[in-house]
Amino acid sequence: MSQKLHHNTQWVGTPPGTLIYIGDKPVGNVRISIHTYNQDRFQVTEVTHLEQCFPNHEKGLVKWVDMDGIQKVEVVKEVGNAYGLHNLVLEDILNSQLRPKIEFFDNYVFVLCKMLSYDDKKGEVLIEQVSFVLGDHYVLSLQEVPGDVFDPIRERIKSNGSRIRRGGADFLLYSLLDVIIDNYFLVLEKIGEKLEGLEEEISQSPSRQNLAILYQLKRELIFVRKAVWPMREIINTLYQDEGPLIEQETRKYLRDAYDHTIQVIDTLESYRDIAAGLLDVYLSGLSNKTNDTMKVLTIISTIFMPLTFIAGVYGMNFDNMPELHLRYGYFWTLGVMFVCCLCMIAWFRKKNWL
Amino acid sequence: MSQKLHHNTQWVGTPPGTLIYIGDKPVGNVRISIHTYNQDRFQVTEVTHLEQCFPNHEKGLVKWVDMDGIQKVEVVKEVGNAYGLHNLVLEDILNSQLRPKIEFFDNYVFVLCKMLSYDDKKGEVLIEQVSFVLGDHYVLSLQEVPGDVFDPIRERIKSNGSRIRRGGADFLLYSLLDVIIDNYFLVLEKIGEKLEGLEEEISQSPSRQNLAILYQLKRELIFVRKAVWPMREIINTLYQDEGPLIEQETRKYLRDAYDHTIQVIDTLESYRDIAAGLLDVYLSGLSNKTNDTMKVLTIISTIFMPLTFIAGVYGMNFDNMPELHLRYGYFWTLGVMFVCCLCMIAWFRKKNWL
Amino acid sequence: MSQKLHHNTQWVGTPPGTLIYIGDKPVGNVRISIHTYNQDRFQVTEVTHLEQCFPNHEKGLVKWVDMDGIQKVEVVKEVGNAYGLHNLVLEDILNSQLRPKIEFFDNYVFVLCKMLSYDDKKGEVLIEQVSFVLGDHYVLSLQEVPGDVFDPIRERIKSNGSRIRRGGADFLLYSLLDVIIDNYFLVLEKIGEKLEGLEEEISQSPSRQNLAILYQLKRELIFVRKAVWPMREIINTLYQDEGPLIEQETRKYLRDAYDHTIQVIDTLESYRDIAAGLLDVYLSGLSNKTNDTMKVLTIISTIFMPLTFIAGVYGMNFDNMPELHLRYGYFWTLGVMFVCCLCMIAWFRKKNWL
Amino acid sequence: MSQKLHHNTQWVGTPPGTLIYIGDKPVGNVRISIHTYNQDRFQVTEVTHLEQCFPNHEKGLVKWVDMDGIQKVEVVKEVGNAYGLHNLVLEDILNSQLRPKIEFFDNYVFVLCKMLSYDDKKGEVLIEQVSFVLGDHYVLSLQEVPGDVFDPIRERIKSNGSRIRRGGADFLLYSLLDVIIDNYFLVLEKIGEKLEGLEEEISQSPSRQNLAILYQLKRELIFVRKAVWPMREIINTLYQDEGPLIEQETRKYLRDAYDHTIQVIDTLESYRDIAAGLLDVYLSGLSNKTNDTMKVLTIISTIFMPLTFIAGVYGMNFDNMPELHLRYGYFWTLGVMFVCCLCMIAWFRKKNWL
Amino acid sequence: MSQKLHHNTQWVGTPPGTLIYIGDKPVGNVRISIHTYNQDRFQVTEVTHLEQCFPNHEKGLVKWVDMDGIQKVEVVKEVGNAYGLHNLVLEDILNSQLRPKIEFFDNYVFVLCKMLSYDDKKGEVLIEQVSFVLGDHYVLSLQEVPGDVFDPIRERIKSNGSRIRRGGADFLLYSLLDVIIDNYFLVLEKIGEKLEGLEEEISQSPSRQNLAILYQLKRELIFVRKAVWPMREIINTLYQDEGPLIEQETRKYLRDAYDHTIQVIDTLESYRDIAAGLLDVYLSGLSNKTNDTMKVLTIISTIFMPLTFIAGVYGMNFDNMPELHLRYGYFWTLGVMFVCCLCMIAWFRKKNWL
Repeated sequence: MSQKLHHNTQWVGTPPGTLIYIGDKPVGNVRISIHTYNQDRFQVTEVTHLEQCFPNHEKGLVKWVDMDGIQKVEVVKEVGNAYGLHNLVLEDILNSQLRPKIEFFDNYVFVLCKMLSYDDKKGEVLIEQVSFVLGDHYVLSLQEVPGDVFDPIRERIKSNGSRIRRGGADFLLYSLLDVIIDNYFLVLEKIGEKLEGLEEEISQSPSRQNLAILYQLKRELIFVRKAVWPMREIINTLYQDEGPLIEQETRKYLRDAYDHTIQVIDTLESYRDIAAGLLDVYLSGLSNKTNDTMKVLTIISTIFMPLTFIAGVYGMNFDNMPELHLRYGYFWTLGVMFVCCLCMIAWFRKKNWL
Repeated sequence: MSQKLHHNTQWVGTPPGTLIYIGDKPVGNVRISIHTYNQDRFQVTEVTHLEQCFPNHEKGLVKWVDMDGIQKVEVVKEVGNAYGLHNLVLEDILNSQLRPKIEFFDNYVFVLCKMLSYDDKKGEVLIEQVSFVLGDHYVLSLQEVPGDVFDPIRERIKSNGSRIRRGGADFLLYSLLDVIIDNYFLVLEKIGEKLEGLEEEISQSPSRQNLAILYQLKRELIFVRKAVWPMREIINTLYQDEGPLIEQETRKYLRDAYDHTIQVIDTLESYRDIAAGLLDVYLSGLSNKTNDTMKVLTIISTIFMPLTFIAGVYGMNFDNMPELHLRYGYFWTLGVMFVCCLCMIAWFRKKNWL
Repeated sequence: MSQKLHHNTQWVGTPPGTLIYIGDKPVGNVRISIHTYNQDRFQVTEVTHLEQCFPNHEKGLVKWVDMDGIQKVEVVKEVGNAYGLHNLVLEDILNSQLRPKIEFFDNYVFVLCKMLSYDDKKGEVLIEQVSFVLGDHYVLSLQEVPGDVFDPIRERIKSNGSRIRRGGADFLLYSLLDVIIDNYFLVLEKIGEKLEGLEEEISQSPSRQNLAILYQLKRELIFVRKAVWPMREIINTLYQDEGPLIEQETRKYLRDAYDHTIQVIDTLESYRDIAAGLLDVYLSGLSNKTNDTMKVLTIISTIFMPLTFIAGVYGMNFDNMPELHLRYGYFWTLGVMFVCCLCMIAWFRKKNWL
Repeated sequence: MSQKLHHNTQWVGTPPGTLIYIGDKPVGNVRISIHTYNQDRFQVTEVTHLEQCFPNHEKGLVKWVDMDGIQKVEVVKEVGNAYGLHNLVLEDILNSQLRPKIEFFDNYVFVLCKMLSYDDKKGEVLIEQVSFVLGDHYVLSLQEVPGDVFDPIRERIKSNGSRIRRGGADFLLYSLLDVIIDNYFLVLEKIGEKLEGLEEEISQSPSRQNLAILYQLKRELIFVRKAVWPMREIINTLYQDEGPLIEQETRKYLRDAYDHTIQVIDTLESYRDIAAGLLDVYLSGLSNKTNDTMKVLTIISTIFMPLTFIAGVYGMNFDNMPELHLRYGYFWTLGVMFVCCLCMIAWFRKKNWL
Repeated sequence: MSQKLHHNTQWVGTPPGTLIYIGDKPVGNVRISIHTYNQDRFQVTEVTHLEQCFPNHEKGLVKWVDMDGIQKVEVVKEVGNAYGLHNLVLEDILNSQLRPKIEFFDNYVFVLCKMLSYDDKKGEVLIEQVSFVLGDHYVLSLQEVPGDVFDPIRERIKSNGSRIRRGGADFLLYSLLDVIIDNYFLVLEKIGEKLEGLEEEISQSPSRQNLAILYQLKRELIFVRKAVWPMREIINTLYQDEGPLIEQETRKYLRDAYDHTIQVIDTLESYRDIAAGLLDVYLSGLSNKTNDTMKVLTIISTIFMPLTFIAGVYGMNFDNMPELHLRYGYFWTLGVMFVCCLCMIAWFRKKNWL
């Protein structure tokens, strides 16, 4: 996850509809692959000429144009124009800092959402923006860098007789959104594991490191929340849309996806509650530590102060101090000190300090 | 209660409608029992051949198919298909991590909810998912492991002339849901008892163990909350449904069940408030303890530091120290020390520190 | 107020409509009194035969049946049946743990609410459930134990020409509810007085007892809240009901009662805010105390440590320590110690520690 | 502001519509003044006979009856009856503890609100209830004690050609409400100033007095909030009312007043946020102070404990201690002590403790 | 940003519609510039005679009157009257303390909003009120002091063929609002950067300065929030308005601006969450520091108290103390002290205190 709180803001003041890439991913190569399929046929093409992904495909085939590398603005523009997308839509596709949203146009639907995945090496949540355009028999998906969570979908398209091959472009869009939501679970599970580990550590011995991790987790939850909450509205809007692009049968699946989103949100909110609780545990752990330190100090002081005082008394130089001349005065004094010490220890035992 | 925050997530990426069991209960034997009854007749059958539980029963009889062991996916599938359930419904039945919900289909209603019970031995809340399908004259109930809270219902079905024998399948569904909600009360009472015990302990002497238990209770309340809140909506939806599956008379009972759910939620929220208050009591208890420790230290220091100083003064080796040669100088000094000590104690008394 | 968080739960699993008393009040005698009145006539009867309270009264007279002792289930049942009450209503009347609510039936309205009063001796809020049934020219009121807040109503019924004598059964119901709401004010005032006393004590010297009382008050506010909030909805529902049982003129009074409920809720929420604020005052008071204790310790240590050190230096046994042989070395040393001590005190003065 | 949390509650149990004064202001003289005006004429009368303020004024003139001293119940009653006010309205006028509200009747509108002003001498917010009755060409305003915020209105009425002289009774009501809302700003500004002063003091040196003032401010904000929030609804209801009493042109002004109310609420909520933030600053200031105290203690102890130890060592009476017989042993020892002390101080410098 | 919590309130009591400037900016010169343009023509005029900005422009041209210096009330009044603005609108334009809002009138729309910008020198957020009036083919924009964020708009108007030149007055208004919203991002980014820097500092070593900055940031967020939240409603109202002043094509852009507002709010709320979290980090950092101070004290005391005690014992003057006469008694004692010291250090190592 991009831990940076601030983004670049060079775009401020540009006219609306200006096509510039806004984001922090490096510019790489554009890579476009096309899946065309129906129940009987299936084909994957790596695009070499941009015209291949223009909307010229046969009737009855679903076409999925899957593009990585939106940093190359001119390619996005050319493809977008070929599919008749509004300039504002193209601007949104290029702006990786937007909030997830859905917009309906005359002959297409535009969906913008966040793909979360977990980088096990860095121990970080990775966030990437994906835009979808659902039109008549086609789906465009556009993202910043190669690498996504769509491999299961690609597999299912390849296998003859799968549900996805029987469905239309709307079912493809549903499948893509569904796999994104499923990955929200994965990311949350990772955060949940971390929370659990943290919980044990904090309840045993709270340290400054724990707090840093907890704070980091809380921030990750804030960011995941920003990605997940709008998803609920998106799926619901798709589900309730009366337009011709979504078939009746797909709606049932969208409702299922909606349930999953609700569940993700539920889990998220539970984690936030638990994280909030952990902070309390941490703070009270600190108080406990302070108290323990103070107990050590008090015990030491309480034992040695009286003893040192007694020693001081018999270190005085008065002429007339009868005890000093007793035969076993010294040993009696040591004995008294020892008893004094034992009493103190007994008292601390009683107070449960030892 | 499953204290684990994270679940297994192998299912991520599988196509929608894939039938796999998602949960953490071990695979056991499938056990199906069938109750058929009307006002006059009554029969219980343990199923040995799966066909027995197919929808071939006589008109006018209510059939309750009660299945434990949904981990055996193929059995669920076969039964589900026999009753014409949608694939997505079967997927939901098999997924024990879902949020409670209700869905209406053409000729059946699907209800998914959480059954809570309290394991007195382990001192834990047990949570199990139960799915209900209400159709024309039948109710299917599916759960993971044997053992449920439905015994009172079974008793009532057995006894001639009971209200349940006069009702239809809808009344049976209501009764099953009602007994589940009643058990929410039981679980909350147990948590309430624990809270009460904890309260006394914390207000007397806060310890790290108390905090752990409090934190555990708060987490249990979070989980119970996730099970209980959606129930309110489920019962309300059933109550307001205009479809033919729910009779008018049953609605009155559903309204009663709705009131009970509201009451469970009320109690739950009160407990959450009280638990939040307990944390404050705990934290201020810690502060009090720290202050008490410090008082001990201060009292000891304040008494012995001046005394030790006096002893130190008369331990000095100056040639000309007239007091040293007084006859009763030593005893006068001891007297002064004693008076000094008494003054200190009096001062602490006045400050209410002793 | 019943401070117990948990209730008995033997009833879990009983069929709906089972008539058992649920509550913690002891079983006493049933006491029923009947007021019948119209503008001209008025009569009070203590019931000796149960038939007296059956619905056989003259036209044009309002009848108020006022029953204490619902623990005697069979009496409630008989009376309920005589007035044609639904079994679920009777079950609710007998269950003293329910949430306040209102339900409309064909020819009667059922209102269930909580009567609060303040026991000055025990310093506790007493809570008791009261059920009302408003029918054609009659009101039933049922509660657990004798002793209620309805005496002003009884007085008003007795006095000729009072507004209540001119009204119907709906006005009687309004009057009963209104006096219950008025008593919420009384209870809140008592809590307000306690809060005020507590505030002064806490701001002067916070002690563990204060916290216990504060916590107790917060819990009382939680319980009062559970009783009061639903009342708002009940009165509003009555006010907006279009049915024939409520006359137009009574509605104006109901609206007045509604305003009072809102005001009770407002006061309640203010008290909750103030109680929350008191906790902060308490906690910061604790911190202040800890700091004060520490200041004492620091002052004592800072004054005596240097002095003891100086004494220690001249207690050393070196052969060659010229100061020891000065004529007034001892007195000079005492002088230095004294100045040292004065400097410290001046420094603490400057730091506002003394 | 009446800081008392509890009110007198002798009224509990009185029948609805009983006219008694509820409040804590002393009974004074009734003072009634009447403004009658239209675009051309204008007259102020101090009422000596109660009949003067009865609704017998000429057509086309607006009449404003402005009464102080509602504690004299019988006067209110007589005037109220003359204008045909409902008994419940009169009861509300007399009850100074009510929540602001608006009620529409057949031929008048009843508005009850709180007038806030700031007593610079006592440094307190003063709160007083004002009731308005808007009828056909008249406005009644009733309050407890003389002294109000309406002087600007009186001035405007006096001056020929002012907007208020061209408007009707509805514009007069608007003007009165507007000036009340304007005074909310004044009161908030005073609280804002106090908050600002407090902020500086707390961030420099937090003391117990600061907390008391902060707590007082928070309570004042709670009380102001109770007065201001309902005002929003009142103005909005007036604005949206379709009745004949409010002219179209006045509505525009009411909308303006509505904006002002929203702004008061906005400011109020900001102040609450800021006050909540100040508490955190205070608490962390306390922690800082405790830490500073502890640093002093630690520095003193760390410097003198080793020194005293060294002195102690050479105060031992062993026969064979070679250092004691060195010529400059004493001075070497003093040197070592001095170096030791310097090291400590350097170390504290490095730790930024000095 | 004006950090003052309180404003001047001399205006309280003035009649509605009184035109006085309310704000804290100094009175400067009025500066008015006029842009008139359509797709083909374009002209900028600095106004020297007030009549130039009156609504007398050619058909088909969009006129943007851009005025700085509303402190000169009479100029605003003259221009306002020329465009037929309501007196209340003029009052709002002159009051720089208002909440952002939108109002529709018969032939114009009035929009009032806050322009935020960041003063890098002072490190402060600057806030200024801007009012817009959108009428038939004209836009008025009025603000307090010269200097705004509209330069990009001016550039676009100058350049032939830009989208803004093809649009009408509504598109101009949209562009002005859009650039204001874009600047909210800029300001938030600055706050975000500060938050990030603060986070690092606080997690390393919390100091009183950090808290002051954090508190300042929280207050800035409160103020930004007050400016931004109403903007959402304004844009939404404009977007959904059915009136003739907004063209269909502009609506699409307004929807885009709406999305941006939502995103600003989202970011704002995240920052508030993060700032709240930082306070917890700060407070626990303080606790850690206190604990560290205490550890130093405890270590020093625990090491030197026993040593000093031993030295004290052998400083006693008993006649019979055999150890004193041992040949190497002194060195043995020093050895014991050294071992004692090592043991303590080992123990602290084990406790992870060193």
